[in-house]
Amino acid sequence: MSEVYDQLEQTMHDWPRLEPEERLEAFSALPLERAEELLDCMNAIDQAELLESMPEAERRVWLRYLDPDDLADVLLETSDESREQMISLLDERNRHEVNALLAYAEDDAGGLMNPRFARLRPELTIDEAIRYLRKQSQSRISLEHLYVLDEEQFLLGEVALDSLFSARPDELVRDIAEADIVTAPEDMDQEEVGALFARYSLTAMPVVDEQGHMKGIITADDVVDVIYEENTEDAQKFGGMEALDDPYLRTGFWELIKKRAGWLVLLLLGEMLTASAMANYEAQLNAVWYLAIFVPLIISSGGNSGSQASTLVVRAMAMGEVQPKDWAVVLWRELRTGAVMGAMVGFVGILRILFWQYMFDGVYGAHYWELAFTVGLSLLGVVVLGCMAGSMLPFLLKMLKFDPASASAPFVATLVDVSGLIVYFSVASVLLAQAISGAAG
Amino acid sequence: MSEVYDQLEQTMHDWPRLEPEERLEAFSALPLERAEELLDCMNAIDQAELLESMPEAERRVWLRYLDPDDLADVLLETSDESREQMISLLDERNRHEVNALLAYAEDDAGGLMNPRFARLRPELTIDEAIRYLRKQSQSRISLEHLYVLDEEQFLLGEVALDSLFSARPDELVRDIAEADIVTAPEDMDQEEVGALFARYSLTAMPVVDEQGHMKGIITADDVVDVIYEENTEDAQKFGGMEALDDPYLRTGFWELIKKRAGWLVLLLLGEMLTASAMANYEAQLNAVWYLAIFVPLIISSGGNSGSQASTLVVRAMAMGEVQPKDWAVVLWRELRTGAVMGAMVGFVGILRILFWQYMFDGVYGAHYWELAFTVGLSLLGVVVLGCMAGSMLPFLLKMLKFDPASASAPFVATLVDVSGLIVYFSVASVLLAQAISGAAG
Repeated sequence: MSEVYDQLEQTMHDWPRLEPEERLEAFSALPLERAEELLDCMNAIDQAELLESMPEAERRVWLRYLDPDDLADVLLETSDESREQMISLLDERNRHEVNALLAYAEDDAGGLMNPRFARLRPELTIDEAIRYLRKQSQSRISLEHLYVLDEEQFLLGEVALDSLFSARPDELVRDIAEADIVTAPEDMDQEEVGALFARYSLTAMPVVDEQGHMKGIITADDVVDVIYEENTEDAQKFGGMEALDDPYLRTGFWELIKKRAGWLVLLLLGEMLTASAMANYEAQLNAVWYLAIFVPLIISSGGNSGSQASTLVVRAMAMGEVQPKDWAVVLWRELRTGAVMGAMVGFVGILRILFWQYMFDGVYGAHYWELAFTVGLSLLGVVVLGCMAGSMLPFLLKMLKFDPASASAPFVATLVDVSGLIVYFSVASVLLAQAISGAAG
Repeated sequence: MSEVYDQLEQTMHDWPRLEPEERLEAFSALPLERAEELLDCMNAIDQAELLESMPEAERRVWLRYLDPDDLADVLLETSDESREQMISLLDERNRHEVNALLAYAEDDAGGLMNPRFARLRPELTIDEAIRYLRKQSQSRISLEHLYVLDEEQFLLGEVALDSLFSARPDELVRDIAEADIVTAPEDMDQEEVGALFARYSLTAMPVVDEQGHMKGIITADDVVDVIYEENTEDAQKFGGMEALDDPYLRTGFWELIKKRAGWLVLLLLGEMLTASAMANYEAQLNAVWYLAIFVPLIISSGGNSGSQASTLVVRAMAMGEVQPKDWAVVLWRELRTGAVMGAMVGFVGILRILFWQYMFDGVYGAHYWELAFTVGLSLLGVVVLGCMAGSMLPFLLKMLKFDPASASAPFVATLVDVSGLIVYFSVASVLLAQAISGAAG
């Protein structure tokens, strides 16, 4: 890593800790090349903030420096008023490109692509093509990926650099182009774009409209950002909250509460069913008070096994390994896994009670064997329940057109808690019937 | 998307559902170019399986087709015996490259890189450089990224394609090279490599040894795979289990149990403390039986807010937004967030009890106001506790050199459950003192 990048790293680290006016000062003090690098590394929020703080002349220069796709992202982070003003500072071509990009949804292939890419005509000779590329090389267009388009901008194929270099000067571009390439329609969701890049190990992908006209190029570095972003969103949903729009420390206090409190209250309302469920077992609770002390242990085991199962299924869905029609395979797998793990956990639970009974001088009274088996069988039951609920909830959400990632650990736990309590007290009512009626009588 | 890729997509989807012998048959039936594409798209496990099922002559051809870095990944998925045999089928150069790669840890920059890349000498003229690239273009080396190395393989810089195309034929490579480039040391962890790609929007990065000799190149398509893989591992840890080595449906039944049951039993052992904690409140439980029915609701609210907080911090750490020294900023933020959200949740809890008391004809007896405030204040307390424990556990794990992603929702919930119960029964002992002593007396 060169010294220059060490400095850049330091600047980027300090950036969020600077006051807004200090940022502009620090930026303006940099030599041109370093300033360009710093701007390129920033996220769109920081870029927008910095540009808005600049005097107009400087802002004009930097707006024109940015690639159209990055520029569009910046404009989405500014106020309507400021956006109009910024667009008015662009030259004709830039303005046209940016307005076209702003028409796409931010999360679509169209919103992700760069409309500038290197194009070649099929009827050119290799010699002509190279001369043409030399001319294009002045205009900040990446030459790593070369596409063959006819005069109507219809995409015919791609020319790999090694084919170009190894071809004879009088061969035609048409003859060395590869026609079978992976493309994305303009409205493909960015999550799917990421999956395609991963599946086919792509470094770039053209975006085409319905008729097959090429509109832009998505490169793997854009996709890296997308995958980080999508994974963060999924992780946050999976943690039992709404996905944040901004990084954690950049999210405002009330915004943070808005994203979290809704789910927290919703989950509380769901969890209130546990109080109603337990109220039905007044007799059991009054008769055998220590039934209550195993409640947290039992419901949490159901929640934990449910969290494991939903994590596995949500991730496997996101990776395309599990499809909606695989639900029965998954259910059968989780049923068996749950049975084995439940038996293990249940066994440990039984040991715990027998051990305490032995250590603490008969603390659970005469019916300790029944209590031990009530807890053991209930643990088995809730772990199986957890595995089933956790693995099926993502399928259900997907079927109802929700994001499977919302099958969060807290959501699954809340589902399993009520049913887990019913299992526990039902088992207790049978196995501890004598103790319960004895105390009540 | 071309028809060819539609077929490829179909084949890849059916692949895991075919019997092993059917796979070889299907693969061998493809025209050469399609077979190459299919092999390129497979993961290393499938590649290894397919190669192992081939007759030796065919295996030799395909082993030599693979890039050295992919080949090394395949060899890691085979048995020791089969690995020896496969290496013996390689030619001298391939064997040398693969053995060098196998010496690196799989998750390091060295294990990720391709040792084949396009090199230019600094003293060449552009004209000579282009002639040299034309020769290299025959040997399956990517020409998208061109590196300048001296005779000792010391990395001097990179030549961008547009600089190459726009340079005069008699300029020197040295004069158009960019010397300030981001590089990775051989032993950099792949997670960090991914973060660098994201931070600097890279499409490729050279890997260098301590002295600065270039050993290979990592391209963004490799990084896309790495990020998916790392995110899946983090998600699984966060779901309360060990990360799987293989995709969910490809993981063996007992392997799956091994990865899950350990944590499940460990969490159960932790959760057993709740039973011990509650046993201390025998008097309260015996006196006011309905204290027990709010236990699940209270502890789950702590777990839910803890899950939110740990998700946010774990993700922000993975993205490099939050560093270990930011712990106090985060704690202060979560303390305030927890207080506000806890007040909201507590208020809803109070309403629930007052509403039930009104609807169900005084179900909670004379002391329902005290009960309502016990539940409300306890909810406030556990939500604050949850936010604090959830946000600090990742810092603690990181400090102890564990993976912060292990600060899973179930782990945090287990931590908060015990303290949550103590809060609840302590508040109850004060507010409901009269009811408790009244019943006991």
